Amino acid sequence: MATSTTRAPGTSRADLITDAALGLLAERGMRGLTHRAVDERAGLPQGSTSNYARTRQALLEATVRRLAEREAQVLAPGELPMPGGEPWEATEGPDALVAGLALALHRYLTRHPELLICRYELALEATRRPELREFFDATGRQFREPLVALMTAAGSAEPERHALSLVAWCEGLMFSCAAGSYHRSVPTAAELRTGFTELLRGMLGPRGQ
Amino acid sequence: MATSTTRAPGTSRADLITDAALGLLAERGMRGLTHRAVDERAGLPQGSTSNYARTRQALLEATVRRLAEREAQVLAPGELPMPGGEPWEATEGPDALVAGLALALHRYLTRHPELLICRYELALEATRRPELREFFDATGRQFREPLVALMTAAGSAEPERHALSLVAWCEGLMFSCAAGSYHRSVPTAAELRTGFTELLRGMLGPRGQ
Repeated sequence: MATSTTRAPGTSRADLITDAALGLLAERGMRGLTHRAVDERAGLPQGSTSNYARTRQALLEATVRRLAEREAQVLAPGELPMPGGEPWEATEGPDALVAGLALALHRYLTRHPELLICRYELALEATRRPELREFFDATGRQFREPLVALMTAAGSAEPERHALSLVAWCEGLMFSCAAGSYHRSVPTAAELRTGFTELLRGMLGPRGQ
Repeated sequence: MATSTTRAPGTSRADLITDAALGLLAERGMRGLTHRAVDERAGLPQGSTSNYARTRQALLEATVRRLAEREAQVLAPGELPMPGGEPWEATEGPDALVAGLALALHRYLTRHPELLICRYELALEATRRPELREFFDATGRQFREPLVALMTAAGSAEPERHALSLVAWCEGLMFSCAAGSYHRSVPTAAELRTGFTELLRGMLGPRGQ
């Protein structure tokens, strides 16, 4: 049927339901996310979503978990510049860090812009639901802590504040691409690299170039 | 009544209705914004909001216009560092620009955090409603164009890209304060000044300090 999610071989019913929920969130927002709409979009018998997640809170939590999985696939952590990981090592200096960050951000912006809308819909909902809030705090830490380590390794005098500034810049770019100033023109990977380079140079001084 | 908006002397019925709509958006999100809920929150007879804005689209447009008015009050454009305006002049250099931007941002973050939630709820809804989109594009231009002029005056080689980068950083900070990494600790005005200084220094080179 036209509105059903394409079911990849091996997709579990849970993934089918939560992917349909993400699709609804992106297209119709929080108002469009209902148990019945998820059933329809997933091409499942009425009641399937209620069986899987009885309450709205349970459905939202499952959707947030699925978003984290999908984001992890898009951001491909194995390719991210994590300390001690590949391809970035502290000894490689900021150039490799910049390249890694720009690559990860560009991949998210271009491959799955609809996940960005879901991310922000759920983040706003989390301001009203402490259980979702905890998830965003945890994923925030997961992303921030390696960045603090990276900034320390790169010679930052204030790695915590600098990591938050980097996160804010990425967040702002992602939001602008999803729903703001950039929504018709995602920056190129080269523009993102230049932007990261400038931000790091301003934080670390000329040796950060 | 407990849920009614405090009505300042001289507040028009239109403002009363749209302020109630903003309050609902911040507290309950897009799902909580209904004509009837606005009547109740504003302490007006049932049907008042429908009389004022018959459709959901009309109510959203009126709410977006009110948000722009409220944001303009908070940001106090007279105090913003606009070219040719007070207190910033191109000849004053980036210090005054940084101080002006940090002041404006800090005022928004601390005085009316609930308006930030409204801003992002409406920006996401605008991805689904072209009529709201146009509003966000227009206000985006209104904010971006003076920044492009400021960056040009400050000696930027790429004023358009640099203005967008500044906007992204501000947007990210605002979003992080409303619903993300910063939601329990808004940066101080001094931290914002340092952050702006670093960003500009990275863009403009050491002369930007």
